[in-house]
Amino acid sequence: MPLVRITVTSGLLRETRRALGDAVHKALVSVAKAPADDQFQVIEEVPPENLRWSPSYLGIEHREPIVFVQVFMNAGRTTEVKKALFAALADGLAGAGGFRREDVIVSLVEVAKENWSFGGGLMSYPPPT
Amino acid sequence: MPLVRITVTSGLLRETRRALGDAVHKALVSVAKAPADDQFQVIEEVPPENLRWSPSYLGIEHREPIVFVQVFMNAGRTTEVKKALFAALADGLAGAGGFRREDVIVSLVEVAKENWSFGGGLMSYPPPT
Amino acid sequence: MPLVRITVTSGLLRETRRALGDAVHKALVSVAKAPADDQFQVIEEVPPENLRWSPSYLGIEHREPIVFVQVFMNAGRTTEVKKALFAALADGLAGAGGFRREDVIVSLVEVAKENWSFGGGLMSYPPPT
Repeated sequence: MPLVRITVTSGLLRETRRALGDAVHKALVSVAKAPADDQFQVIEEVPPENLRWSPSYLGIEHREPIVFVQVFMNAGRTTEVKKALFAALADGLAGAGGFRREDVIVSLVEVAKENWSFGGGLMSYPPPT
Repeated sequence: MPLVRITVTSGLLRETRRALGDAVHKALVSVAKAPADDQFQVIEEVPPENLRWSPSYLGIEHREPIVFVQVFMNAGRTTEVKKALFAALADGLAGAGGFRREDVIVSLVEVAKENWSFGGGLMSYPPPT
Repeated sequence: MPLVRITVTSGLLRETRRALGDAVHKALVSVAKAPADDQFQVIEEVPPENLRWSPSYLGIEHREPIVFVQVFMNAGRTTEVKKALFAALADGLAGAGGFRREDVIVSLVEVAKENWSFGGGLMSYPPPT
């Protein structure tokens, strides 16, 4: 159910990109209870000048390399789960890709459970009838 | 009012990419009553390793080529309309791009009607005053 | 707090892309009260055939070059603020990038305040406890 978009600057090794995807998925599974076999992700590479970020925001300094992670997922996670997810994503991406924890930027977008089709033209999580 | 993001691996013919966009739009118009002249889409091409997907999820097997379709649209479609939209998208993309229906992944993101400007700096669907 | 995705066709000068990002941010700061040091953006460049748009919709004619701006931001802006934001974005992008105001397409996606982490693994705007 999560669809994840990971945005980085071009030039990361293929293995690093793969590790980033896996680290994000591991955080989603362990903290947000995403199913283990529910890994659907796009890794987007852009030239450095196309990734814009403030050098400092909310007292946190940013520098290259930076990574944006946008997670489209079902609504309903608690505030506590979201906090744990942010921490796990920062830890995981730091470990996988050589990012500083300060430079892992996360955006969650919540949607209704009925808004997914993971193939076959079927609604993946139909509401009870 | 839909803004559609279609993500595929690089290398599809231009005509195929065009057909994918048209198939998505046709499904939105016929099933979800999007206006016929309301076609705004981004087709995103990434290298194969940047499109990550589980080989099996919810009993559906996936294999290449796979396509992700993310539709940003106004809230308010019923569960039945969404079900019909998922089916129409799978049918349409299978026909247009040589995908198996199993490999059409769809994510809907619903927004408020007042959240669009289709040019001119104007709110496209202002609420009644 | 906004995460902005700006989509254009490939080939714009680097300075023009930078000016587009700055113009979007200026509109968000001046009209929607985004913090000045809260600029996080992805500029996405695609070949012309991968940016699909209707030549006319809602009485507004479109032609190349066209730009899509998608803003993920906290819920809660009023209808009036959104109207002003649409106008400011059209004005700003027209000035910065040589676009006609008619060809600035905007999509807003609203999320909960607790859905952001701008680094450090921390929830950036935790709710009061």
